[in-house]
Amino acid sequence: MRIIKKSKEINSLFNSFKKTGFVPTMGSLHKGHEYLIKKSVKENNVTFVSIFVNPKQFNNKMDLKKYPKNLKEDVKICRKCKVNYLFLPSFKEVYSWKVQSKKKTPKIKNIMEHKYRKGHFKGVIKVIEKLSNIIPASKMYLGEKDFQQIKVITDYFNINKVKTKIVKCKTVRDKNGLALSSRNKLLKKENLKKAVNIVNFIKKIKLKNIHSNLKINIIRNYLKKNDVKFDYVQNINLKQFNISKNRTINTRIFFAFYLGTVRLIDNL
Amino acid sequence: MRIIKKSKEINSLFNSFKKTGFVPTMGSLHKGHEYLIKKSVKENNVTFVSIFVNPKQFNNKMDLKKYPKNLKEDVKICRKCKVNYLFLPSFKEVYSWKVQSKKKTPKIKNIMEHKYRKGHFKGVIKVIEKLSNIIPASKMYLGEKDFQQIKVITDYFNINKVKTKIVKCKTVRDKNGLALSSRNKLLKKENLKKAVNIVNFIKKIKLKNIHSNLKINIIRNYLKKNDVKFDYVQNINLKQFNISKNRTINTRIFFAFYLGTVRLIDNL
Repeated sequence: MRIIKKSKEINSLFNSFKKTGFVPTMGSLHKGHEYLIKKSVKENNVTFVSIFVNPKQFNNKMDLKKYPKNLKEDVKICRKCKVNYLFLPSFKEVYSWKVQSKKKTPKIKNIMEHKYRKGHFKGVIKVIEKLSNIIPASKMYLGEKDFQQIKVITDYFNINKVKTKIVKCKTVRDKNGLALSSRNKLLKKENLKKAVNIVNFIKKIKLKNIHSNLKINIIRNYLKKNDVKFDYVQNINLKQFNISKNRTINTRIFFAFYLGTVRLIDNL
Repeated sequence: MRIIKKSKEINSLFNSFKKTGFVPTMGSLHKGHEYLIKKSVKENNVTFVSIFVNPKQFNNKMDLKKYPKNLKEDVKICRKCKVNYLFLPSFKEVYSWKVQSKKKTPKIKNIMEHKYRKGHFKGVIKVIEKLSNIIPASKMYLGEKDFQQIKVITDYFNINKVKTKIVKCKTVRDKNGLALSSRNKLLKKENLKKAVNIVNFIKKIKLKNIHSNLKINIIRNYLKKNDVKFDYVQNINLKQFNISKNRTINTRIFFAFYLGTVRLIDNL
């Protein structure tokens, strides 16, 4: 029992009761997920993590089939990070959940992932609609590697007045600069090295004091020269969220490329 | 960490996060308070108890001055009952708290406590306005001995759209049938016996199959004959909350009487 003499203390207590954090994942947890989870545990008094490989967001059946799974290790990581509730639903559990009131779908610009992974965000919105309703947390933690996904979910929450706040978290990278991703586990050693080289090349070009169009061309040529298939390399204005032809401060280079059958995305 | 596979379980979890109970008291806790506290602890996941002798609700200075205090024992009882937070504010702490938006005052019928304790409910409303704002619990637990007080606070909450629900709790009595009250501690042994006799007499008359007006007259005459000063003995319709001249099912006999300088109230 805690004895309180100051009203203000009670006020902050009531605020803390409401603090629930939610980290939705597809499992195969890495240090990037750990970062999100630890941030949530720190900022809230209850943290939920969900592990659910959402088939509806995979445009490619093989990609879904080979998506890495490691539940035993995932549970260990969640326990270590002091997660309060780990949600491991079945497909039926998620999709049979009835969301009250019809939700609006945000308009998504036909660039990047939306252009190259047909139906991907439709699937993302579907699962987020269900999960955010099942777990109506105060905050949802998402990683900036999937930047366009954050944009789509934020828009969805805004137009549907979902009260959960989105906490954008920085991309966690390995010591070589490669963004952590569950799909990295699928890379052969030589391709892992290649991925690191690509990201570091783009980082180097990004820092050059030249026109952004020129940067994009240099990167595309580098990928072509090295026989690396890519969906896009684009300079994106983060405010308007469209392709930026001019150098501005608020831009990032977004890219998606293939090494073997593994598709990686990142932004710098 | 708890692993959950069913969405419904999470739903009930979120409901439980919001469950906060509040038992406002003036201290000198007895088994009646304990009943309220235990009910709150059982029904909520966090229970607040406040101990604050509100001078503004005392119309009689002597009554305030001699109001029993027993903080050490109160803390023990709260600990025993597994209270989570015990709020022990100073006068300044309560009355300097700024309640946002002006609150409406409910109309109170000029009967019983409102008639005989001038300004009492004005003081009750003032302290409840502050306390319910400092501790915006989901439920507030109040005892039916102070029946009119429950009515006033319920009306106040309704017209001001205070979200806290009021849980009316039965009056706890000692083995002789006397309603527990902090003021009982101020009674001399002979008066305690007298109080028990009065309550049992009223109980006996209440059960008789005679017109309610006749019951009231019999009780008043009994009190007069025994030299017991009283403010009122009245048959009150609980639905309309007014003096009922006819026998109906939904009535109680409300009474306030004095033994020495101690004023006791009850309803049967």
